Amino acid sequence: MLKLYIGNKNYSSWSMRPWMLMRQSGIHFDEVKLRFDSFAPDSQFKQQVLSLSPIGKVPLLVDDELIIWDSLAICEYLAERFPEKHLWPQHAAQRARARSLVSEMHSGFSSLRSLCPMNIEARLHEVGAQLWEQHADLRADVRRLEALWLPQLQAAHGPMLFEQFSIADAFFAPVCMRLNSYGLPTSQIVTAYVQRICLLPSTQEWVQGALAENDFLPFEEPYRTQR
Amino acid sequence: MLKLYIGNKNYSSWSMRPWMLMRQSGIHFDEVKLRFDSFAPDSQFKQQVLSLSPIGKVPLLVDDELIIWDSLAICEYLAERFPEKHLWPQHAAQRARARSLVSEMHSGFSSLRSLCPMNIEARLHEVGAQLWEQHADLRADVRRLEALWLPQLQAAHGPMLFEQFSIADAFFAPVCMRLNSYGLPTSQIVTAYVQRICLLPSTQEWVQGALAENDFLPFEEPYRTQR
Repeated sequence: MLKLYIGNKNYSSWSMRPWMLMRQSGIHFDEVKLRFDSFAPDSQFKQQVLSLSPIGKVPLLVDDELIIWDSLAICEYLAERFPEKHLWPQHAAQRARARSLVSEMHSGFSSLRSLCPMNIEARLHEVGAQLWEQHADLRADVRRLEALWLPQLQAAHGPMLFEQFSIADAFFAPVCMRLNSYGLPTSQIVTAYVQRICLLPSTQEWVQGALAENDFLPFEEPYRTQR
Repeated sequence: MLKLYIGNKNYSSWSMRPWMLMRQSGIHFDEVKLRFDSFAPDSQFKQQVLSLSPIGKVPLLVDDELIIWDSLAICEYLAERFPEKHLWPQHAAQRARARSLVSEMHSGFSSLRSLCPMNIEARLHEVGAQLWEQHADLRADVRRLEALWLPQLQAAHGPMLFEQFSIADAFFAPVCMRLNSYGLPTSQIVTAYVQRICLLPSTQEWVQGALAENDFLPFEEPYRTQR
């Protein structure tokens, strides 16, 4: 049985990607949550995760003796291991485009990431409005998201970025969570896509899990002092 | 014919990855260099690259009507298009490991990236020594490189990270350039690997191209005022 190690569902955007991919695609796995107590070398989280792999981060996918780290490498591994699930689009040109979107997400969007950390249970619309006004880089990141998503959503016959659910949607699901929490303004077509992502059964299950954690981590909370 | 758009060879670490991969693997392509005059919206570089793709960045791979951006997506596309070149390791577990290394490089190592930008022609050993002393994050990044590379180099029967040259080596080649330019300290085994990368014909050709540019770009030079 595949085993996926994840962090707090409320905060760990990198964990959400492969978890969503597997759950939404019907790939069975055991979930093991390693709570973020802190990221200091002597934290329980670091001790636990370092006993599995020297990367010292989640997500980690364990398949028998094989340990795969990094959310993108995990998704590529799953796409190879479960070809019948079509985790990437089947057409080569579409697949290349999906990988371009996903790889850009993996290495970019640093302002959106750092200014608007994922925090599913929080409603931070006032903070979001201030950040939006103050940070041109954040506005540029959201403009770039629009430029990536709009052609897909306008061209696609299905509800997702590449018609059917794919790794691309799993990669952008945490971004949808951020857009929601911070109330960042998006076009009508993009807003509707964000809503469709939020209504997926796997998203709802993840969000329920996040809300049930009742775990306030000050080092993940630049804008709140309590729940 | 494939067409690869790149930036200045002296500075553009992201361009170096797919260029090295194609050249070292004997994949024929036309190289088109778009000089970095600046990254301002009205720069010649931005005008040229935006006429090709809204991403507005290099590298870009053009294959007939298909435009693929982002160095990792380009490498994955090439691996699919040229299966006989074995751009990823052939064994599934090794391939998963290679993708873990490459994906981690794609999204991480932010201190090494930002403090030690690629600058092939420059010898910045004094700067490197100061940075090394002042920045624990930089030391941690290089420690992490060692942790990634050492098990591969110790286990491998061949000279590269996964025995034969692969996408993993192409991804880390710009890092080898940085280690050299800034004279950052590494273990003997890693230093020897860096030297082997530097001696690859494709690296030498790229470096020759970088040296021939004679192009000093102040916005890419945090540490020098002239050549």
